[in-house]
Amino acid sequence: MNVAEYMTELGEQARAASREIARADTGDKNRALLAMADAIDASREALVDANQKDMQNGRDKGLDAAMLDRLELTPARIDGMIEGLRQVAALPDPVGGITDMNYRPSGIQLGKMRVPLGVIGIIYESRPNVTCEAASLCLKSGNATILRGGSEAIHSNQAIAACIRQGLEAAGLPQTAVQVVATTDREAVGQLITMPDYVDVIVPRGGKGLIERIANDARVPVIKHLDGICHVYIDAEADKTKALNIAINAKTHRYGTCNTMETLLVDSAVAAETLPELADHYAQLGVELRGCARTLEILPNINAATEEDWATEYLAPVLAVKLVDGMDEAIAHINRYGSHHTDAIITENYTKARAFLREVDSSSVMVNASTRFADGFEYGLGAEIGISTDKIHARGPVGLEGLTSQKYVVLGDGQVRV
Amino acid sequence: MNVAEYMTELGEQARAASREIARADTGDKNRALLAMADAIDASREALVDANQKDMQNGRDKGLDAAMLDRLELTPARIDGMIEGLRQVAALPDPVGGITDMNYRPSGIQLGKMRVPLGVIGIIYESRPNVTCEAASLCLKSGNATILRGGSEAIHSNQAIAACIRQGLEAAGLPQTAVQVVATTDREAVGQLITMPDYVDVIVPRGGKGLIERIANDARVPVIKHLDGICHVYIDAEADKTKALNIAINAKTHRYGTCNTMETLLVDSAVAAETLPELADHYAQLGVELRGCARTLEILPNINAATEEDWATEYLAPVLAVKLVDGMDEAIAHINRYGSHHTDAIITENYTKARAFLREVDSSSVMVNASTRFADGFEYGLGAEIGISTDKIHARGPVGLEGLTSQKYVVLGDGQVRV
Repeated sequence: MNVAEYMTELGEQARAASREIARADTGDKNRALLAMADAIDASREALVDANQKDMQNGRDKGLDAAMLDRLELTPARIDGMIEGLRQVAALPDPVGGITDMNYRPSGIQLGKMRVPLGVIGIIYESRPNVTCEAASLCLKSGNATILRGGSEAIHSNQAIAACIRQGLEAAGLPQTAVQVVATTDREAVGQLITMPDYVDVIVPRGGKGLIERIANDARVPVIKHLDGICHVYIDAEADKTKALNIAINAKTHRYGTCNTMETLLVDSAVAAETLPELADHYAQLGVELRGCARTLEILPNINAATEEDWATEYLAPVLAVKLVDGMDEAIAHINRYGSHHTDAIITENYTKARAFLREVDSSSVMVNASTRFADGFEYGLGAEIGISTDKIHARGPVGLEGLTSQKYVVLGDGQVRV
Repeated sequence: MNVAEYMTELGEQARAASREIARADTGDKNRALLAMADAIDASREALVDANQKDMQNGRDKGLDAAMLDRLELTPARIDGMIEGLRQVAALPDPVGGITDMNYRPSGIQLGKMRVPLGVIGIIYESRPNVTCEAASLCLKSGNATILRGGSEAIHSNQAIAACIRQGLEAAGLPQTAVQVVATTDREAVGQLITMPDYVDVIVPRGGKGLIERIANDARVPVIKHLDGICHVYIDAEADKTKALNIAINAKTHRYGTCNTMETLLVDSAVAAETLPELADHYAQLGVELRGCARTLEILPNINAATEEDWATEYLAPVLAVKLVDGMDEAIAHINRYGSHHTDAIITENYTKARAFLREVDSSSVMVNASTRFADGFEYGLGAEIGISTDKIHARGPVGLEGLTSQKYVVLGDGQVRV
């Protein structure tokens, strides 16, 4: 069987399973999730064995240390998968929720019912625990899933898939509700993103290059997260302590996350009193600063930023710093160079806080809080499948609700249009 | 200037205008809408003159009567545009609405703010009044718009665009907030749908062929309406009077609309007592019936339906009729052959009503009501830019809210992640 036929078969099975999973009871879905957790707990040895094959192949292929680290299934990561499944089982089920039910002048009663999207295709890179995370969120939100992980994790992903199938079977749900692509042929991705009859939406997770390619080639909608070029703007009326704490936290709490600050904007009126102290903190923490020309006048020992720096997601202990003359210039910079992810203003001024919230075109806009809060757990979503930088459907952290949509429901007593 | 450069210029202007229109006061947007209405009222002669050029060109090119009818700007249609603008001005402004504002354990306060999508591209066919309708909805929802109408309506559309610009200017809003493409070169469409830097979403309005081409070639998200293959299912426990009234209304109230019933499903248990009476009514109204083999046993004088009939949107006095053995078969037929638009069950049975609402995968699902109610005005949206048969973002009639999205807003007192 060739790849196109294989993917079509997965698609047909997923479409059929999506009908069953869409109407599955919350209790059955939860039982499946808990049974998956138990199956993973009981299969630790098999999981580690499979993972060791992937690790050995990876070493043979010369994968770098960071990639091997992401690939590894440690006991702690297996614990994490089990805990994650139990957490998703405990989350409220969004499916079937009816809101805004009201009578219309015609006598019909109109409301909106939350419904699954149908079949979700997930494309991701080396981390095998994504298999479990993504499958659990899609299942709880009533969707069927086709997962396509990185080829370097194929044995790990298949071992996890076996546990997932056990869980589905234990709850009497179709095993085809979660399918993990069993071929490493790259053509499988090309097929998955061009089957609108079988796949309703694609969620890619990985580097920007992968996501751009998928968005460009897909023939189905894509919920995507491109990059996180997040800003903190220290306003002229910022509380200095809050400004320092947030600027340090947003940059240094973790370097590799998408909600980490990459550019610091400082009102020129307070730059001289703020930047030297901040620069000392950053220096102690090993953060390299790259400043605009006016920043260099205050901090002559740092490197100069180029135009490219304003549009770069470093994911590293590097920070671009730019002076601006007031909030409007800060907002213009953010809307031009940012990635519409998460941006914060530090100010005590009510009017500026209000305007910043309205005018910054990002999925999360904050006043006096660290950009690091832009996260599904911090937002109370329970879990997230990713953070969307798109403008339609879902913006920001995407949890269970982001994997659903709403249809209209109409109740009548025989009404007809006149 | 070539078409690509021209479209890029429109795109840049639209992006810049979208920033201004996104933060425009509701009052200013309403003043612009009312000033547009006044400008159209004062320009009736110029509008009719421009339209006459299009009509003459259309007749010279041999456009058919239906197309010429859609192209014509009659006094009543001009009244309709004016009235539509005033209605949109009277609708509540969705932009900036904040919901679900709650404190999180970290101390941050988290909510969702409704925001415009940014720049919306509208591609449509011959009806020039769409220019006015679409522009008004996009403006009220805080979006900039680039409109590309049919080449046969170019003079009419440019005359309407002049009135729109007058209205924007009168309210002090940027005239580039609504731009009507001034070239009839088909390449303009290709450019418009492949400028993700300047256009956030495309809304095509027109025939299925046009929409499929656009969805296939677009590099930006598309909110689309493919077709309306709507069903009424008469259950074994239907109230006969309601069943007859709704089956007649859903088919014959208007033939050319997307929410018109195209296939009637009848439970075989009540077919013999229902179909002959229904067939008499349809015959009187000039509706051609095409039945499945079992329908032909009850109505031997009608035509036989082929497989193709189940997947056809007739938009005409033709109705496919199929007998099913119970609701599950009806739902399976609808989910397989329907277009996920609008489908209704006629039943007095509580459990079946509940299951039908949940299991039918359509943007509107109804119990004991005519499919003809699936409409922005009937649903109280005030106006609609179209009916989406997509599954992400917006399903069903798309009003002002469907042209917006939600971003997260976070209010803090200096909180940082620990």
